[in-house]
Amino acid sequence: MNILSTAIDDNFPTGVHELMFVPTIEGQGNEEQKKKWLKISRNFDIIGCYAQTELGHGTFIRGLETIATYDPSTEEFVMNSPTLTSMKWWPGSVGHTATHAIVVARLITKGKDEGIHLFIVQIRSLEDHNPLPGIKVGDIGPKFGYFGTDNGFLHMTNVRIPRDHMLMKYAQVSRDGTYSKPPAEADKISYAVMVYVRALIVDHSAETLARAITIAIRYSVVRRQTQNRPGEPETQVLDYQTQQFKLFPLLASAYAIKFAGHYMTKLYTEVTEEISEGKLRSLPELHATSAGLKAFCTELCCSGIELCRLSCGGHGYSAASGLPQLYADYSSSQTYEGENTVMLLQTARYIFKVCKQNMPQAQLPSNVAYLAADYPKYKESPVSDPKHFNDPHILLEAYRQRVIRLVAVALERYSKSIATGLDSVAAWNNSSVDWTMAARAHCHYLVLKAFHSSIDAAKVCEANFNIMRVLCCLFGLHGIIQYSGEFCLDGYMNSEQIEMAKNQLYFLLKEVRYEAVPLVDAFDIHDDILNSSLGRYDGDVYRHLYEWALRAPRNKKEVHDNYEKYLKPLLKNTKSKL
Amino acid sequence: MNILSTAIDDNFPTGVHELMFVPTIEGQGNEEQKKKWLKISRNFDIIGCYAQTELGHGTFIRGLETIATYDPSTEEFVMNSPTLTSMKWWPGSVGHTATHAIVVARLITKGKDEGIHLFIVQIRSLEDHNPLPGIKVGDIGPKFGYFGTDNGFLHMTNVRIPRDHMLMKYAQVSRDGTYSKPPAEADKISYAVMVYVRALIVDHSAETLARAITIAIRYSVVRRQTQNRPGEPETQVLDYQTQQFKLFPLLASAYAIKFAGHYMTKLYTEVTEEISEGKLRSLPELHATSAGLKAFCTELCCSGIELCRLSCGGHGYSAASGLPQLYADYSSSQTYEGENTVMLLQTARYIFKVCKQNMPQAQLPSNVAYLAADYPKYKESPVSDPKHFNDPHILLEAYRQRVIRLVAVALERYSKSIATGLDSVAAWNNSSVDWTMAARAHCHYLVLKAFHSSIDAAKVCEANFNIMRVLCCLFGLHGIIQYSGEFCLDGYMNSEQIEMAKNQLYFLLKEVRYEAVPLVDAFDIHDDILNSSLGRYDGDVYRHLYEWALRAPRNKKEVHDNYEKYLKPLLKNTKSKL
Ligand SMILES: Cc1cc2nc3c(=O)[nH]c(=O)nc-3n(C[C@H](O)[C@H](O)[C@H](O)COP(=O)(O)OP(=O)(O)OC[C@H]3O[C@@H](n4cnc5c(N)ncnc54)[C@H](O)[C@@H]3O)c2cc1C
Ligand SMILES: Cc1cc2nc3c(=O)[nH]c(=O)nc-3n(C[C@H](O)[C@H](O)[C@H](O)COP(=O)(O)OP(=O)(O)OC[C@H]3O[C@@H](n4cnc5c(N)ncnc54)[C@H](O)[C@@H]3O)c2cc1C
Repeated sequence: MNILSTAIDDNFPTGVHELMFVPTIEGQGNEEQKKKWLKISRNFDIIGCYAQTELGHGTFIRGLETIATYDPSTEEFVMNSPTLTSMKWWPGSVGHTATHAIVVARLITKGKDEGIHLFIVQIRSLEDHNPLPGIKVGDIGPKFGYFGTDNGFLHMTNVRIPRDHMLMKYAQVSRDGTYSKPPAEADKISYAVMVYVRALIVDHSAETLARAITIAIRYSVVRRQTQNRPGEPETQVLDYQTQQFKLFPLLASAYAIKFAGHYMTKLYTEVTEEISEGKLRSLPELHATSAGLKAFCTELCCSGIELCRLSCGGHGYSAASGLPQLYADYSSSQTYEGENTVMLLQTARYIFKVCKQNMPQAQLPSNVAYLAADYPKYKESPVSDPKHFNDPHILLEAYRQRVIRLVAVALERYSKSIATGLDSVAAWNNSSVDWTMAARAHCHYLVLKAFHSSIDAAKVCEANFNIMRVLCCLFGLHGIIQYSGEFCLDGYMNSEQIEMAKNQLYFLLKEVRYEAVPLVDAFDIHDDILNSSLGRYDGDVYRHLYEWALRAPRNKKEVHDNYEKYLKPLLKNTKSKL
Repeated sequence: MNILSTAIDDNFPTGVHELMFVPTIEGQGNEEQKKKWLKISRNFDIIGCYAQTELGHGTFIRGLETIATYDPSTEEFVMNSPTLTSMKWWPGSVGHTATHAIVVARLITKGKDEGIHLFIVQIRSLEDHNPLPGIKVGDIGPKFGYFGTDNGFLHMTNVRIPRDHMLMKYAQVSRDGTYSKPPAEADKISYAVMVYVRALIVDHSAETLARAITIAIRYSVVRRQTQNRPGEPETQVLDYQTQQFKLFPLLASAYAIKFAGHYMTKLYTEVTEEISEGKLRSLPELHATSAGLKAFCTELCCSGIELCRLSCGGHGYSAASGLPQLYADYSSSQTYEGENTVMLLQTARYIFKVCKQNMPQAQLPSNVAYLAADYPKYKESPVSDPKHFNDPHILLEAYRQRVIRLVAVALERYSKSIATGLDSVAAWNNSSVDWTMAARAHCHYLVLKAFHSSIDAAKVCEANFNIMRVLCCLFGLHGIIQYSGEFCLDGYMNSEQIEMAKNQLYFLLKEVRYEAVPLVDAFDIHDDILNSSLGRYDGDVYRHLYEWALRAPRNKKEVHDNYEKYLKPLLKNTKSKL
């Protein structure tokens, strides 16, 4: 299904079935449940969705209002949506496609609220697809993008499901309604599924940005605008420094995010192996990393798509460019699977805890070891020549020192608030903007690190190695320019060094210029997938824009129906004019 | 028509008629032509469009390929689109609505190419609206937004128009084909129309951002998410510092852009008065200011709408929020009427000239007087306490010093390139990223200045004055944080002062918190115009989201037609499964 869904723009109504429904049963179902559900799911005898978010709650899961009350007399759960805001809202496929839903609801048994648990609820008849009694489902209506997905609502009134439809790997309800708590570590383990999905999202960010930058760079060599010297042809817009400054850092970012995705998948595999050996120590780090990287990479990808679109001038605004839909669809990745600000705050929370523990480097996971109290806070950057920035270690150290300083600022603001008598909640809030800055910077560092170690580790030929190294430095330098104030914090870098970074960046833009097209070709995205008149491999942009336009529904008739209805009365003066 | 077009989302197919067609005839037509065309235009007996951009050229007007060849034997111009890329592409209303077009074309007379001139071409029959012989018109197809406007293409083959259809206020072609050049200042005067349109765009940016921020702020007091202290209600998301940091600077920006718009209109009026007195001295400054402010304000507005949308979490992604369409429509303002990067480079070019002239402050227009060589380049900011930032003069000076330093950097890079033997074109290109930074910073300064002088000038009550002053400082401080590296350039500000700016900014966020709703209410945007379930004045968000969803076309049937077609075969196993 994967290639297929890429081809039809990642908009497949059964996507959630495979990405969320099946993996959740795998992760949270007991052996019997897995036997019962997985085969028929994988065979598409049923189609599932994942119904967590409600009209009133997305981020705050403990606030969900849907209720599953256990009735020992029939050994069933009675599912209810007691309020307007408790209605499930947003789940993909619930509108018209799904026959079953994993419903996240509060479990009530023996009169006690045992908190959030997962239940499998059949919502439509397998005979005729009609909603079952007590179920009200529908589409939540038009959205920015994802037109192909029926994000929907689900309201339940006294819907009864058998006891074994609660996913019982960790917590159980016995026949008489006795509740057994999940083991303490279950919560952490369930992070693992989230981490997996977030790694997929990061991978997907890389692919998506690769598509956008392929379109923008290919078009920028076809597009010529302005004759800058008499007698010479007009300039290819990719030769403008401003255009290179928009696009080449994004090209580097597409590669950077790709490597960050690889890194996350590797981390995920390692940690799940550890889990299977009963070691849970790395889970918090894994969780914090995945939350932050999800936020960082989706944000970078989304703003990148828009910059690509804008860099195509007027034609970027046409649907023929492929860029509007790419953006409209993908921009939701900043919100689903954890709203980005909330994600950064979770990463920040972890950083905060690490710092509070005050452990030496050696005892910390490698990603955050540099936040240990005994890691040197260098007074100033050693750079005295633009070329020094060719050394990724110089860049990586600068990124570390930036985070160290941002964390210090956030910690200080937090402590000051505590000192004035505020509680930890208020103090956290008062310093939360600083914490998001620190978390973003930490993720930026992790991405640069992943980029650097991947190309160092990869066995590639000299030429490829060199250009990858250039892109890696370009990525690092662009961040320094973009966040120059943060790199100057507490005097680590100074204006002269920032100027050197800029000089080196401009130098690298020129290096990349003649590699740019091969570098996007290397993403190897087929024209049919790219679906863009501007990004065509053959460069035959203008003819295809025209042919595409001729096929527009509005061009079916020479004179549009609106003429008779609106224009004629206006033009012929048969109606009063405004 | 204005209110009407706001109500239907600025998407009126006759918009271009009023914004471009009529004003162009007013500005470029001679008296006879005005008599002939204006009355019937204003009466909507004809509907016009403005056809400048071609498939191959938008920014570079001298590169346009459409040809108007004068034929003295019939006293007509023969209009032709000689190449694929010469086809007019993008003009609003040309697809299906317009009966006439102002066509921008190269004039050929007596075998000589006299460059770009304007011609009125009838494109559709006034009888039955069919395209006239030799004319091929149509819609260019789906776009990101502006669904209501028929942006189209126009291809002409030997279309003959009478001699007096060339707009002849400045340049003329006589009956025998003799060409009279426009006077030297005509070019500059024609800037004036552009300036007018750009002032409108800035105004429109302010209105659009006001709409977005009204939605986001109203929703952020309705939306509660996360119970932060046991027993307390969940927190209104507007109480999160991160949310305030997203939204309050945008609230301030909406006001700032409004004042920038007022300022531009005032400037426009003053300068057109000067023109009518034959003084053209201020025109270059007016042009540079309007180009830069157009770019700065549309960019700020567009990124602002997106931030508003994201700050509404999942529901922001729903069309019910009103934000997706606002963005999709408005984001084109960064491209039309002068692509933003190109606009910033025009402002930069003016700054460059000002600096090269090396004139004293007294001889320069007031907006750029601070760029004179004799304006003090202060060594460092005097701020030693966060409260000092309450003084707008401190802020304004910081903004000036930032530009002075950025200009110095750009100039130096330019000169160095010249020194290595490059020509001025290459040297300009090598320093162009720096120039856009300088130009953006200059515009940022102008907007802050407009904000400050407007509230200073306005006769408002103490309370209103105070909150406006808070917003003005908030706007200024947020820029300092966002571009802290630029404010630290060459040591004007240091890390401690940036920290003080942050402290003061966080302090002001709290000040604004309880004024935020009244401040957006003050924009006085009616629910029907806002068209947003999230931004409703009554705050009854959830019920309206639900009612809106129920009306979605996809909810007409309980079981969607796709079921029979696609899902049933999949579920019932009557087709092979992937
Ligand atoms: C395209 C799409 C598909 C989706 N698919 C599914 C699906 O299949 N299944 C499903 O269950 N859900 C789905 N969702 C819902 C999605 O998971 C939620 O929208 C998402 O988790 C964000 O939560 P929210 O909407 O409650 O945002 P909110 O939490 O309401 O966010 C609003 C604002 O409040 C801020 N905020 C909230 N809490 C805090 C805090 N504690 N501290 C600081 N700031 C805070 C946020 O930063 C944001 O700016 C989907 C959503 C979209 C857009
Ligand atoms: C919604 C919409 C409505 C429109 N309505 C009309 C209309 O009614 N009538 C009409 O005639 N046109 C219309 N247009 C066209 C519009 O005016 C042009 O698209 C616009 O002027 C930008 O020009 P371009 O498309 O050639 O961009 P390009 O110039 O091709 O821009 C592509 C890239 O090249 C860069 N670039 C170009 N030149 C330079 C340079 N010299 N230096 C550095 N960088 C450069 C740009 O920064 C940009 O990143 C409309 C466009 C849109 C999107």
